[in-house]
Amino acid sequence: MERAERVGQLLLARGWRVSVAESTAGGLISAALLQVAGASRYYERGVVAYTRAAKIDTLGMPPSLYTAQGSVHREAVKAMAEGVRRLSNAQVGVAESGVAGPGAGNSGLAIGTVWAAVVTPEREFQRELHLPGNRVEVMEGIVERILAMLEEVLTPPQFA
Amino acid sequence: MERAERVGQLLLARGWRVSVAESTAGGLISAALLQVAGASRYYERGVVAYTRAAKIDTLGMPPSLYTAQGSVHREAVKAMAEGVRRLSNAQVGVAESGVAGPGAGNSGLAIGTVWAAVVTPEREFQRELHLPGNRVEVMEGIVERILAMLEEVLTPPQFA
Repeated sequence: MERAERVGQLLLARGWRVSVAESTAGGLISAALLQVAGASRYYERGVVAYTRAAKIDTLGMPPSLYTAQGSVHREAVKAMAEGVRRLSNAQVGVAESGVAGPGAGNSGLAIGTVWAAVVTPEREFQRELHLPGNRVEVMEGIVERILAMLEEVLTPPQFA
Repeated sequence: MERAERVGQLLLARGWRVSVAESTAGGLISAALLQVAGASRYYERGVVAYTRAAKIDTLGMPPSLYTAQGSVHREAVKAMAEGVRRLSNAQVGVAESGVAGPGAGNSGLAIGTVWAAVVTPEREFQRELHLPGNRVEVMEGIVERILAMLEEVLTPPQFA
């Protein structure tokens, strides 16, 4: 079973739905989840918040979190994940923001630097990623890493 | 040059920005546009409005347009395209909704039936598509057809 399918099974087992706020991945996270047949049972909605305005207006990210690093930092992606979850009444929110290249922008961050966040009713966490490759490879790398984070967060703890 | 790049060049030539409301394509339209370096100059935002609630709450689609065919009809995708354009102050709005399978749902529509819409300050049009293949192939087919519609709508008329 592919990872997106396993994530779907874990969501179904909890009775949770997921919503996704993407920036750099550009829609590929939602698409990966939705390529699984039956995903409508647990996928609620996605936002591709590419601009500052989209992050603030649509996701409710506080403008003060748009810093010199843009939204590529822990507190910003946390706010984006919480925003898309609240917006959609989903239990699980996912977000990411990074630098895909080829230009590095004004942030001073290296290409491939990405912050990712997952929030659930039980847990939240954020992680800094450093992904190799060109623009498309960075986008695809984010999807793999986000799905892995979701699988990790959603898997119930195993007791001996 | 790939079609997504040509669409980007056409948008830049007009000084227009595009926003995207997807349902069945699940984020792949936004991703196709954003895989082009420099797309931040003309891509504003995207919404993956998979549920009825997302189409109504986020895109402002009138609930009455959610019919027995769901949002897979001309007026619904037109409202979605207008909604995402208005939401984001973009000049160009794109939307689609269809049946990707493997289940046909309750609509009575064949798998691969998709309605697509493009609105610009000058034109609007909607088109019914019938796409072959499995779920992922239908999703990918929508992207190709939407990019072709965008290229067609954005290309200035040629005079002899």
